[in-house]
Amino acid sequence: MNAWGMGIASKVTAPPPLTGSGKGKKVAILGAGLAGLSAAYELRKLGYRVQVLEARPYAGGRCQTARRGFRLRELGGEEQLCRFDRGHYINHGPWRIPLDHQSTLHYAREFAVPLEVMVNENDHAWVYLEEGGPLSKRRLRGAQIKADMRGHVAELLAKSVQSRQLDVRLSSEDQMLLLDYLAREGALGVGDLAYKGRSGRGFATNPGAGLVPGAGTPSDPLAFGDLLAARVGKVYSAVQEFPMHATMFQPVGGMDRIPQAFAARLGDTIRYGAEVRRIRQDAAGVTIDLHDTASGQASSVKADYCLCTLPLSVLRMIDTDFSPGFKAALKAVPYAPVGKIGLQMGRRFWEEDDHIYGGHVLTDLKGINTISLPSNGWQQRKGVVLGYYNYALDAIEVSALSTAQRTEFALAAGEKIFPAYRSAYENAFSVAWHRVQYSLGGWAEWNDAARRDAYPLLLEGEGRVQLAGEHLSYLTGWQAGAIESAWQQIERLHRRASA
Amino acid sequence: MNAWGMGIASKVTAPPPLTGSGKGKKVAILGAGLAGLSAAYELRKLGYRVQVLEARPYAGGRCQTARRGFRLRELGGEEQLCRFDRGHYINHGPWRIPLDHQSTLHYAREFAVPLEVMVNENDHAWVYLEEGGPLSKRRLRGAQIKADMRGHVAELLAKSVQSRQLDVRLSSEDQMLLLDYLAREGALGVGDLAYKGRSGRGFATNPGAGLVPGAGTPSDPLAFGDLLAARVGKVYSAVQEFPMHATMFQPVGGMDRIPQAFAARLGDTIRYGAEVRRIRQDAAGVTIDLHDTASGQASSVKADYCLCTLPLSVLRMIDTDFSPGFKAALKAVPYAPVGKIGLQMGRRFWEEDDHIYGGHVLTDLKGINTISLPSNGWQQRKGVVLGYYNYALDAIEVSALSTAQRTEFALAAGEKIFPAYRSAYENAFSVAWHRVQYSLGGWAEWNDAARRDAYPLLLEGEGRVQLAGEHLSYLTGWQAGAIESAWQQIERLHRRASA
Repeated sequence: MNAWGMGIASKVTAPPPLTGSGKGKKVAILGAGLAGLSAAYELRKLGYRVQVLEARPYAGGRCQTARRGFRLRELGGEEQLCRFDRGHYINHGPWRIPLDHQSTLHYAREFAVPLEVMVNENDHAWVYLEEGGPLSKRRLRGAQIKADMRGHVAELLAKSVQSRQLDVRLSSEDQMLLLDYLAREGALGVGDLAYKGRSGRGFATNPGAGLVPGAGTPSDPLAFGDLLAARVGKVYSAVQEFPMHATMFQPVGGMDRIPQAFAARLGDTIRYGAEVRRIRQDAAGVTIDLHDTASGQASSVKADYCLCTLPLSVLRMIDTDFSPGFKAALKAVPYAPVGKIGLQMGRRFWEEDDHIYGGHVLTDLKGINTISLPSNGWQQRKGVVLGYYNYALDAIEVSALSTAQRTEFALAAGEKIFPAYRSAYENAFSVAWHRVQYSLGGWAEWNDAARRDAYPLLLEGEGRVQLAGEHLSYLTGWQAGAIESAWQQIERLHRRASA
Repeated sequence: MNAWGMGIASKVTAPPPLTGSGKGKKVAILGAGLAGLSAAYELRKLGYRVQVLEARPYAGGRCQTARRGFRLRELGGEEQLCRFDRGHYINHGPWRIPLDHQSTLHYAREFAVPLEVMVNENDHAWVYLEEGGPLSKRRLRGAQIKADMRGHVAELLAKSVQSRQLDVRLSSEDQMLLLDYLAREGALGVGDLAYKGRSGRGFATNPGAGLVPGAGTPSDPLAFGDLLAARVGKVYSAVQEFPMHATMFQPVGGMDRIPQAFAARLGDTIRYGAEVRRIRQDAAGVTIDLHDTASGQASSVKADYCLCTLPLSVLRMIDTDFSPGFKAALKAVPYAPVGKIGLQMGRRFWEEDDHIYGGHVLTDLKGINTISLPSNGWQQRKGVVLGYYNYALDAIEVSALSTAQRTEFALAAGEKIFPAYRSAYENAFSVAWHRVQYSLGGWAEWNDAARRDAYPLLLEGEGRVQLAGEHLSYLTGWQAGAIESAWQQIERLHRRASA
């Protein structure tokens, strides 16, 4: 175990500072996703002769952006042609870059990919519960829940302090300080310590010009009992966990601007349409047998080393001479069923009617999870809404629908929340990642046993073959996982090649 | 009192739907700030002959953007020439558009002014207290305070519930629901209901690739007692009040894109360099005496009506024939002393070193209030930081400094929080709005007595003269206040003109 493996890796914000030279050595990199691209880019700097073999006709792997003309055929499904208006798109793979993911941001900076804010938390967006007890089927603003729960809880605690029920728990000085904090935090009334609403939950009538009630009409808080019975915590949390933040980033124009920037620099180092059929290694090197997806012709590539970034879901179906133990490890990891749909809307009703600018509508509507509103094209005429983002059984069920049925499914849900949803709808593009060739799933979903047994084995690689990708990180499903895994594994590969 | 004054105004998101015609009638509009510009734009649509008289050589009033070449001479002060690199700027007047301000957004939409997100709340930004008791002079992330206060309060309340201290306050069913909520909200331990930190406060070491501790090293929470004693509530609040939101908007390229869009459409309807010296009215019309700031020549403009949008701080010093009562009302409103400084930094150390992308560093450092980080040019080399945003006595004190001293004041404070602050500094541009000619203050600061007595009188106007501006709204200091006041007052003016 090296220094990287000891956790320093997770603090790095730049590729490993490798010394020595890879001159005269050839590395075949399987897959032109973020892992393969960053490995190729860095290894080439060290002097390695690099060839990236990519089955798709473009770079990026799961980092895809559907815009006008983009085609996708799921396994056993019809071909979809994206018909969004020019300038509109959906990032149906990765769609947000957290500030904690300095590795992803590193390449955006290095390649001068313009970024814009992706609004990831919007307290003004609706929370809509089908099963929300007394608050069922009502459009609530996140800010209402946040302000009111905070207010009621603060009032409850403050009154307990006031009636000396917390004497056993807190010193009287801390009680005074706590009362002061609670009064601010919960916007409690002076004297009566009661929560009666606050402007942060929204006004009934906003302040404006004019006379009465120019100062704004307060709105009444939701009742504490109703909020508790609604179990709003099911969908709404006021503190987001790592690596979520209220504001994240997206490349201007689409997430695929990042792999495109790599691809432009790597040029014909990347061979497209090269589907890996067989991997063999011996003392002399590695041989990759390929199937050209355009011509149908077979060919072979020989290299001194191989960095395989194919998802395990794909790699385990390829003919290899890995040891039985390694092959078993490849099979130990389930892949996430994940579905998304982009709906082009002819009118930005969420902005115009509801004054919601980006962020997620949180809901317990089955198979929907979130309706996410675009963080680009503010106030323009049209926009592409993410109509669902489903996982697990939901994703499997929805993926069994035809593309037309998926659209209907999304519209039927969305119109419960937005009256204009169906009438504004123009066209759709959906994906079910577990049905996408060369991906076969959204991301690796490790369980504890596989993390313990299979993960260290896979990290080691076998012979001249190393693996890399989001699956070999604790940032599964994130581009940063792919990049940081690649950074770690090229260090390992370089160490072996230099030994 | 009309329907507008009854509060409908504050819900409007578009100009009033006026009918009839202003043909053959001339309106002199004093001031080309947002109020004057929107009034001119709308009145012209109705057929009025409109002339906007503006003392400055450009439109926008206090809506200004300092970029390379921008000049400002404060009263009794030296002339500042902005030396920021091309592409960099500071909005030293209004700098953020809340989603609640649909009137401002209305014109951004109408004129297709591109908007981008202005990060107004960033839990990753530092909170730095000089007087923070046990937490003094430490750089804390907002997320740490938020997560830890939430966690400790949830634990305290949950344990009180558990030990049946709240039986008198809540039914046992509500207590169960509350425990469930608190456990989620505070990330409490299962069983022991203890708060021990959470990933949302940040890791000691982030998850990444590799083995141990690839899953991320947890960070220890701040002690409840320390947080209470630090009185973090002084600067930090987890619920923002109206009209603040985590994400707001700014026009791409500078706030003055909005007045520029108006000015382009109004063309020579606006007469620049026209300083108002005298206002007289009689039964036949209004006469405005002007001083041309370029030639020094005097001239007069006659009109049927006048809409005066000059700040009251300016208007009350002009020779008018208003009644004594009206003149007294003009004097009833203090104007806010406000100061800002833009500091061009040669390196975006807040992004590169601290991973803070936009938002505000909150501090009790005297005279600073906030250090705000730019929401544009993400990951580029340089950026302009707002070094202070001070009000009241602080603003007066700092404004008495020379521009070089103001810079030193800002740097001495900032380097307490950011080690690279001084070394990265390149040049500065500061403003003290109370010392700016034609503005004489940041915004109107109404007290209750003046709202009761002077405000209704000023809203009525006198004779052929109506007033408008942020000062005649409950959105003082906001562009929306200026626009919505203009919308209200042109309706009044049109009603009188049509009578």
